[in-house]
Formats: sequence, structure tokens, C-alpha cells
Amino acid sequence: MTLAERLYPKDKVVLREVGLRDGLQLVQSWPTTAQKNEWLALEHRAGVRHFEVGSFLPAARFPQFADLREMIATVSGLDGAFSAALTLNERGVADALETPVDEIMFVVSATEAHSEANTRRSRTEALEMARRIDAQRRAGRTDPPVLTVGVAMAFGCTLAGEVEPKEVLRMVEGAAEAGADVIAIADTVGWAGPAQVAHLAREARALLGDVPVAMHFHDTRGLALANAAAALGEGVRILDASLAGLGGCPFAPGATGNAVFEDLAFLCRTMGFDTGIDIAALGEARSVLEAAMPNEKVHGALARAGLPEVLTQA
Amino acid sequence: MTLAERLYPKDKVVLREVGLRDGLQLVQSWPTTAQKNEWLALEHRAGVRHFEVGSFLPAARFPQFADLREMIATVSGLDGAFSAALTLNERGVADALETPVDEIMFVVSATEAHSEANTRRSRTEALEMARRIDAQRRAGRTDPPVLTVGVAMAFGCTLAGEVEPKEVLRMVEGAAEAGADVIAIADTVGWAGPAQVAHLAREARALLGDVPVAMHFHDTRGLALANAAAALGEGVRILDASLAGLGGCPFAPGATGNAVFEDLAFLCRTMGFDTGIDIAALGEARSVLEAAMPNEKVHGALARAGLPEVLTQA
Repeated sequence: MTLAERLYPKDKVVLREVGLRDGLQLVQSWPTTAQKNEWLALEHRAGVRHFEVGSFLPAARFPQFADLREMIATVSGLDGAFSAALTLNERGVADALETPVDEIMFVVSATEAHSEANTRRSRTEALEMARRIDAQRRAGRTDPPVLTVGVAMAFGCTLAGEVEPKEVLRMVEGAAEAGADVIAIADTVGWAGPAQVAHLAREARALLGDVPVAMHFHDTRGLALANAAAALGEGVRILDASLAGLGGCPFAPGATGNAVFEDLAFLCRTMGFDTGIDIAALGEARSVLEAAMPNEKVHGALARAGLPEVLTQA
Repeated sequence: MTLAERLYPKDKVVLREVGLRDGLQLVQSWPTTAQKNEWLALEHRAGVRHFEVGSFLPAARFPQFADLREMIATVSGLDGAFSAALTLNERGVADALETPVDEIMFVVSATEAHSEANTRRSRTEALEMARRIDAQRRAGRTDPPVLTVGVAMAFGCTLAGEVEPKEVLRMVEGAAEAGADVIAIADTVGWAGPAQVAHLAREARALLGDVPVAMHFHDTRGLALANAAAALGEGVRILDASLAGLGGCPFAPGATGNAVFEDLAFLCRTMGFDTGIDIAALGEARSVLEAAMPNEKVHGALARAGLPEVLTQA
């Protein structure tokens, strides 16, 4: 069984905690290393197994990720847990390959405008880089880390406006051809609705065959869970979220952040998917986050309302 | 064309504003009559046409509804607008029939426990009352007000626990046999998930044929919009919501209230449904509500993030 198959068993719903990466992208303050470790341990105890823990970026500019290597080591020590980290180029991948990280994330854009503005690379150049990264991670390794390529701005782009699904699918296909194990489709700015999500999920899955599709939603306009439900309905089995919805949107000040992990876990439960997560136990991890980042806005309906009584016994 | 057909044209998505009824059920303070009138006028200007404006209840115990008759008169004066009011028994219906109200709501429970606890009537007795109310509204009228019968606790009950869909469908069928023009299925306590919603919507629509199904969701656990999307996907065309999500849950202190009207309108737009509502213009009505009820918690992602740029021009 490859590492990719161990990370993402077919048909099992996997919720990826991205709070320590996407959730910390825009914040003014962040948890200490000890607090991050506690957060990870408590979420792991609640059954979470997939943790995206940072970006390989210059620590001088992104001090919130300065302890990324330690986070990867922490996750390695948690039974059955997998770590992921974002890389922006071959240099980041080289750094990642010196760690025991299980999954390398690399992101391309659905639109030319965002690709150029964000990375000064065309979409074609970005896919070429993905191909080089795939070779780089495989070089000399029999079981290299999983390579997940994300397609950003897949449901709308603040620079290019509406995005045609065929543009997204072109990048999805290109990423798979480049060698990615998983293709993640991201509603980076929170424009997606469930009908678009269902359509794109269906088309992407048809295109990719056995290569799993992940989806990444922001709750910017309140539709993260509606979109997650639509994705699950179309067979998507890998979804990103962050505890307490940590993470903002650079294009919508005050907006909610990522899909709320707790609420997404509850959604999965109502739909009959076993994520292995003890939803009530997530509250402890949330308390650590709230104490560590008292100035950050936290989100989530379940944290306010509690589980329905009938589920609290389970 | 009957009044019911004018209120609810086949295949048109209708969003019913229930803030002045369900939104005021639990509050400690409420808008003045003048503020309510302004709220109604501004939402009407934004394209909203369906307003549930109160309950026929003793004004001494429910002073927030003391001006219900005036609200009904206000809605009568708004071009193309329809008013609805909740009635709990024949006495409330008699009161309603003295007004120009367009729609009478009557609620039965999906569970025996809630029916008895809430109204001291069995479910069978409640359906018998619905039948009498149907006769009462028709007596001497060629075009009586629409009778909408709601089925409460349809996705879970804080008294009875989980609720079998067949129990709900029995009440749905009974309500239609009693003469209701519309059957509303309500997730009173916010336990529903989109898979249950889709299932029940499909079954109810199959059972009811031409009698329209409405659905009423609370955002107690963050799934109101996911559930609304599932309902729309199954052909439900009438949905309740309240501006800023006004309205709490008596069984979950601090919980969010009704589905957020603005966000639901945005959801419909992403799904390609024309509700006739100018989403950006709802902001003015929201300002009136916020000024009138400064101590109430308001909700909504769109109010924080704004519409995607590409939609603000439309």
C-alpha cells in the first residue's frame, strides 16, 4: 500500500485540520510551540489524524511557521497521524524532504491573473514546476511523501472574476499529469455555491479516475458546509477545515475563515459518514486555541449550541 | 388562480421572511411598530414579498405581537406583498379572519411527546383541529386565506429524541387531508442534516403531488444553508428565513437562530434560482433591525464579507 493509500483510504471520509497552516496565514499573533503541541495532541485524542501544520516560508517573514519542523516531528509522534506542509517552490520541497512530513502541498491557480499576481508564474509554468516537484520528491525514495496539488480560485477569482469550470478542469488534469497523488480544489475567496461544487466535483472525479479529489472551502459567505455537503454527495472524501473556523480571507475583512472543523464533523455525522472523530472532545482543543489566540475571532455553531442530546451519548 | 397559487407560483423559489414572527418569539425587546413598518418597507423594496408578521396570541403575554393587526395592514399596503400569521387554535383563526391576512399558519408536531407538551393535544387531535380550521377559513369565503400547516420537530425532538421520517410523513399526509394548501416541514431544534432533508423532501413531495412543501430551518448547528440547498435540490421551492438570522432556540442558549435571510438569498443566487431579491439592498433593512434591537445577536456571513465583486454589479 502506498503512503497515499494509507493517508486517504478509498471511500473513507477524511477531514484535514488546516488551522495551523491556513488558519495562521493572516493572523497577528499565534500559539507558542507548546500550545501548538497541545492543540495537536488534543485534536489527535479526539480522533483527528490529518494535520497541515505550516508553510515552508522564510521564518523572518512568516514567524508563525518558524517551528514547522517541530510540528512535523510532533505529528510523527502521534499514533496514526499524518502531517502536511505547504511548499511554494523546489526550495520549499527540498526543505520538506529533510523532514518526515507525510504530505507536500503545492498550489497552482485556476486563473492566469491570479497565477501571475501570486507567484509570477504562468499556469503552464506552475504545472511544469509541479512536475519537477514530483520528480524531486521521488528521487531516491521508494515511498516518497504524498504530493497534493491544489487548484486555487476554482470557483471565482477576485482578479479574474468568474471562473469557467473548464479552466479549472484543465489545471486539475494538468496537476494529475504532473504526478500529483491528490488534487485539491479550493474556493479560495468563498464564492462557491453547492450547485457549482457538485458540478465541478463530478467533472473532476470523472476526469481523474482513481486519483482522489479533495476540496477546500472557506465560509466567507456562509456556504462552506452547504458546499461540503454537495462535495460529499458527489463522492469527494477529503475535506479541509480548521478548528473554530480559524483563518480569514484577505479579500473580505471581517469574513469568517475556513470551514469550521467541529461543524463539518457534525455534518459528516448527520450524513452517516464515519470520520472517527469524537465531536464533543474537540471542545478541549478549541479551548487551547481560544486561550492561545484570545484576539482571534472564533466561529462555529456547535460550540454555541452543543450537540443534539441524542448524539451526546454516542 | 387561487390565492395559494398567487402566493406560491409553481417552480418559483419563494423566501418567506419570518423575522417578525419566529424572530421575535424569544426576545426581551422588540422593534416599535414604526420600526417594524420601516423594516417591512425596506425589505419589500429589496424584493421580498412574503412576510410572516406575528402570532395571534394574548397581547398581555406576548406584547411583541400586540401590533400584529397593524402589521398585516402594512403588508396589505405593499405592492404584491403577502402577510402570514401564526394561529394556535380556532380562536386565533377567528381573529385572523377579521384581518386581510393572506396566509394562516397552524402547527402540529411530528412527535406525540412534543404535541402533548406544547399544546396539550395529541397528534390526532391536532390534525382534527387543522380540519376544523380549514372549514372555518372557508366558511362563506370564495377565496379564503391560504392555510399552511407546519410539522414541527420533523428532524429530531428534544423530548422524543430521533424522529422517524414515517412519523413525519404521517403528519404531512394528515395535514394535507385536513385541507392545508401548503405543508411546512420544520427542523424546530436544528438537528437536521442535508441527507435527512433530501430524503424527507423527496418523500413528502412524492406523497403530496401538487400540494407544495415548504421547509423551515434553524441554524442552531450551522447547517441551515446546507439543509436549504438539499431542499432546493429536491424541488422544495418555499423556504423560511429571517433577516440577520434573528431568533433563538429555546433548547440551545446562545445558538444561532433562523436561517439567515441574506445568506439564503445568496445561496439561491449561486444555484441559479431567481428569487427577485436584491441582496445588497437587504443591508438597509438589516440596519433598521440592528438599530431597533441593539441587544439582539445578529448573524450572517454576507453582512460581514459582502457580495462577491462579480455579483455587486448585477
